[in-house]
Amino acid sequence: MGKQLTGAILAVGSPREKPDIRYCAGFTVPDPVVYVQQAAKKYLVVSLLDRELACRVASDIQVYSPDALRIPRALRGKLSGWIMGLLRELGIRAVTVAADFPVSTADRLRRAGLRLAVADGPLIPERAVKTRAEVERIAACQRAAAQAMREAIRLIARARVDKKNRLRMRGRLLTAERVRHAIYRVLMDHNCTGEGTIVACGEQAATPHGIGQGPLRAHQSIVIDIFPRHLEHGYWGDLTRTVVKGAPPPALKKMYSAVKAAQAAALAEICAGVSGRRIHRTASAVLAGRGFKTGLLDGQAQGFIHSTGHGIGLEVHEAPSLGPRPGRLRAGHVVTVEPGLYYFQHGGVRIEDTVLVTRHGCRKLAVCEDVFQV
Amino acid sequence: MGKQLTGAILAVGSPREKPDIRYCAGFTVPDPVVYVQQAAKKYLVVSLLDRELACRVASDIQVYSPDALRIPRALRGKLSGWIMGLLRELGIRAVTVAADFPVSTADRLRRAGLRLAVADGPLIPERAVKTRAEVERIAACQRAAAQAMREAIRLIARARVDKKNRLRMRGRLLTAERVRHAIYRVLMDHNCTGEGTIVACGEQAATPHGIGQGPLRAHQSIVIDIFPRHLEHGYWGDLTRTVVKGAPPPALKKMYSAVKAAQAAALAEICAGVSGRRIHRTASAVLAGRGFKTGLLDGQAQGFIHSTGHGIGLEVHEAPSLGPRPGRLRAGHVVTVEPGLYYFQHGGVRIEDTVLVTRHGCRKLAVCEDVFQV
Repeated sequence: MGKQLTGAILAVGSPREKPDIRYCAGFTVPDPVVYVQQAAKKYLVVSLLDRELACRVASDIQVYSPDALRIPRALRGKLSGWIMGLLRELGIRAVTVAADFPVSTADRLRRAGLRLAVADGPLIPERAVKTRAEVERIAACQRAAAQAMREAIRLIARARVDKKNRLRMRGRLLTAERVRHAIYRVLMDHNCTGEGTIVACGEQAATPHGIGQGPLRAHQSIVIDIFPRHLEHGYWGDLTRTVVKGAPPPALKKMYSAVKAAQAAALAEICAGVSGRRIHRTASAVLAGRGFKTGLLDGQAQGFIHSTGHGIGLEVHEAPSLGPRPGRLRAGHVVTVEPGLYYFQHGGVRIEDTVLVTRHGCRKLAVCEDVFQV
Repeated sequence: MGKQLTGAILAVGSPREKPDIRYCAGFTVPDPVVYVQQAAKKYLVVSLLDRELACRVASDIQVYSPDALRIPRALRGKLSGWIMGLLRELGIRAVTVAADFPVSTADRLRRAGLRLAVADGPLIPERAVKTRAEVERIAACQRAAAQAMREAIRLIARARVDKKNRLRMRGRLLTAERVRHAIYRVLMDHNCTGEGTIVACGEQAATPHGIGQGPLRAHQSIVIDIFPRHLEHGYWGDLTRTVVKGAPPPALKKMYSAVKAAQAAALAEICAGVSGRRIHRTASAVLAGRGFKTGLLDGQAQGFIHSTGHGIGLEVHEAPSLGPRPGRLRAGHVVTVEPGLYYFQHGGVRIEDTVLVTRHGCRKLAVCEDVFQV
C-alpha cells in the first residue's frame, strides 16, 4: 500500500501531536522535534530544554541539540534550520515525508536543494501491526470504555420516564451531558480521557458525528460511542453501543437486529489475508439484504453512510481501513468493527467493538455486553 | 507581525485539531473539512456525514458537501478535490495558507495551477485578541487549575515524611502519579482534561518538560504545572506553582524569591502597547541581577532557559510571545507569565499565572495562593 519508500524518512513536530514521532522516539514532549530515520538508524534534534529527557528515554536514538549542529545563525531557531543541519551532518540529500508535513518547511528545504518525496500512504507503515505491548495498551483503554459503557447504560436503565417521555434521575433530567460526565469519571479512574464521547438520542443519533446534548428520551435510540485515550501512553480504544429506554418502535428494532447481524458477519470474516474492502462489502450486503437503503434520501446522507471500521493505535483513526480502499488485513492489526444505520425518521443505530486480527480470525479486546432495550 | 495577508484564506483539517478552523467555524467534528474565507464571507466543505451538523451550528457560513461541487470523480474523496471544487465555484485562483498546511495537498493544488502563499505568522491573527466570552472560557479553565492546584498542595502539605525523606500518605508513598491523578479528578469536575500535567520533584524539575514520576521528597522543589483544556469548548488555562515539603535548602529559597520577583516585575510592566520582548528582558534582568546565570553550564542548558510567557486560547501556546520575538501586546491578549530557574544541582522553580492584558496593565484570570514551604 502506498509508494515504496526508499532512503531516509523525515518527520517534524511535537511527539505529542505526531504519532509517527511518538511511535519511533518512544517519548513525548510538547515542543517540536526533528526525527530522521535511515535504514535502522534513528536521529533526533530536540531543543536544549529537552535534550536531557530525550537522551534518558530514547536510548536507541542519536540525540542532537541545535547547538551541536552547524546551522547558520539566522536559521538556528527554525525547524528547517535544524533539519538542514542534521541532514548535512548525515550526508543525506533526499528524504520522504508524510502527507501532512508542513508546507512552509517543505518549501524552505526544497529551496535549499533537498529532494523531498511525499509518501502517499503511512510514513511508518509498520505502525499498523501492533506488538503485544501495544495490544495490551489498546485493550486497557477498551476495558475502560466497557466499564464506562456499563455505567452509562446503568444510569439509563435506572432512570424513570416522565410524562413528556424524558428520562429523569433523582428529580433532575437525565441529559446527554450528565451521562457523558459519568463516562468521563469512570475513564479518569483508568487514566483515560474521553473527549468527544457521543451520547446522542433520537434525531441527534442520525448524524454519526454529533456528540449529543440535552434530555434523553424513552422509545428512541441512544447511541453511546466511547473512544478513550490513555493519558500516559497515548493509545486509544473505541466502543459503541445503542440502547433504547422502554419499548423500541418496530422500525428501530429491525435496524438494531440488522446492524447486529452485519457486525456478526463482518467479525466472522475477519482474519489475516482478507481485504478490508471485502469485510465492508459483507457488512453492507447484510444491511442491504434486509432492505436498508444507503445514499441520498431527501437530500441527506442516510443508511450505512460510513466504513465498517478503521485501524486504531496511537491514532483513533489509522491504517488499515475496513472500507472501499484496497489493502489486506495482517495478523497484529487492531481494527474497529462498527456497522451502523442512520435515518432521520428513526434515529441511528451503531454497534462497535475493537478487535485484534489473528491468523485465523479475530478477538475482541474487551468484553462488553450487548443490550438494546434497557 | 507576519506578511500582510491579501485575498482568500484556506485551511484544511479536522476542526478538533485545527484551532483556526474551530475558531472560524465555531464547531468541531473529527473528520477533515475545508475552510475558505474571502473578505467577510466564510465557506466550508464538509462530508455528507457532517453537513446536517455544520448547517445547524455554523449559520453564518455557506456549507457545501462534495456532491454539490463539480469535482472530477477521481478527486471526490480527496481534500484537494474538495478545495479545487470550492475554489472553482467561488472563482478564486490564489490563496494564503498556514505554515503547517499539508505539503501533499499544497503540491496537488500548485500542480493544478493554484497560487499558494504561505503565511509567515498566524493565519488568523485576530485570534490573539480575545472576546469577553473567550476570556471567560480561559478563566473557567484557570479557576479549575487553581482548584486542582489547591488539592495537590493540600496532599503534599498533609503527607508525612519517612526516614528516606519520601512523602507518604495513608501508608503509601505519595508519588507524582498520585498527585497528578488527584489533579485530573478535580479538573474533570470542571469538564477539563489535564493531560501532560507536570508534578516534578528534585532533579526532575530541572528539565522544564518532564512530567515527573515516582516518589515525591521533602526538602526538594516540586514544580506543579497544570494546563487544563475544556472538553466542550476547547480553550486552555495554564498555572504553575512550586512548593517544598519541609525546610527548603538556602539555594532553593534564593531561587524561589528571585523567580517571584521576576514574575512581579514582568506583571507590573505588562500593558497594551508594550513589547513582549521588553517583558522578557525585564524578567531576565531581575534573575541575572540576583546572580543567576543562564546558558550552557556543564554542557547542559541551565538557568532561565525559556521565554517569560506565551499567548493562550484554543492553543496552549499561541501568539503573542513574551520572548525574544518582536511584537507588541494589545488589550485583549491573554498571556502566561512564567519565569523559572533550572539547575541540575538544585532543581527547578517556576511560578506561572495567566493574565488578560488591559489598556493600563493586566489582571490574573484566577486567584491562586502562592505558597512555597508547605
